[in-house]
Amino acid sequence: MKKVSAWALAALVAATALPASAQFAKSEDAIKYRQGALAVLGQHFGRLGAMANGKIPFDAKAAQENAEVVAFMAKLPWAGFGAGTEGGKAKPEIWKEQAKFQDLSEKMQAETVKLAAAAKSGNLDQLKAAFGPAAASCKACHDSFRSR
Amino acid sequence: MKKVSAWALAALVAATALPASAQFAKSEDAIKYRQGALAVLGQHFGRLGAMANGKIPFDAKAAQENAEVVAFMAKLPWAGFGAGTEGGKAKPEIWKEQAKFQDLSEKMQAETVKLAAAAKSGNLDQLKAAFGPAAASCKACHDSFRSR
Repeated sequence: MKKVSAWALAALVAATALPASAQFAKSEDAIKYRQGALAVLGQHFGRLGAMANGKIPFDAKAAQENAEVVAFMAKLPWAGFGAGTEGGKAKPEIWKEQAKFQDLSEKMQAETVKLAAAAKSGNLDQLKAAFGPAAASCKACHDSFRSR
Repeated sequence: MKKVSAWALAALVAATALPASAQFAKSEDAIKYRQGALAVLGQHFGRLGAMANGKIPFDAKAAQENAEVVAFMAKLPWAGFGAGTEGGKAKPEIWKEQAKFQDLSEKMQAETVKLAAAAKSGNLDQLKAAFGPAAASCKACHDSFRSR
């Protein structure tokens, strides 16, 4: 069993949406958690970008694997932005504009699901087409909510 | 679609086993990656431990979700221990005893798959039974390869 169907991936994505009540013993744990999840996501996303932009050769299998990790990781960081966990590179606006933050996080998650489907097609043009909107969804949130 | 079959989980685990050739631009990126992946893993594992040890109430759905994240995350850190990435809390022995390190990492991954299956059962006793060996598999590697 080396392949996973789009259905199975979608099922797993739905099944593991985490409750907002996920708890951290300390604020620093939440910060470490969200930074860790985003760092892992960023690595795999970067490899897809390198393929989409022709910086490294397109490898359909690697693209699929990386995109599946991206789609999975995209669900995780948000539980680490709970009340009282201000700090790190997170701007205070996150806790003042919760609706906007949630909206951008959901858009990003949706784009990563599309990206995983595109990568699964094995077609570089589809990967390129999905990568741009996914990258834009990352940037939209960073521009508003991440300090430099 | 709120449930994922054991088959689908196993398929995803198999599908996303990452190639050893996963690359990092800098050694620090690899260190940040593996530390991030292990931090995320540790948070979710800790929540399962709290349930298994009666420190927080058993919540079958949360247990399943956390265990699925643990099983997924357990596959990731190893690509971050490539040649030339010594540093952080990683002992130099990792790069001197590669066979042992790989063996312990594979045992841990196998235990997390069992843990996810146990959590999926919805039975606290099964979770407790699987948690001990999984925790022991973490400790075995930390004892040999992680500095304090």
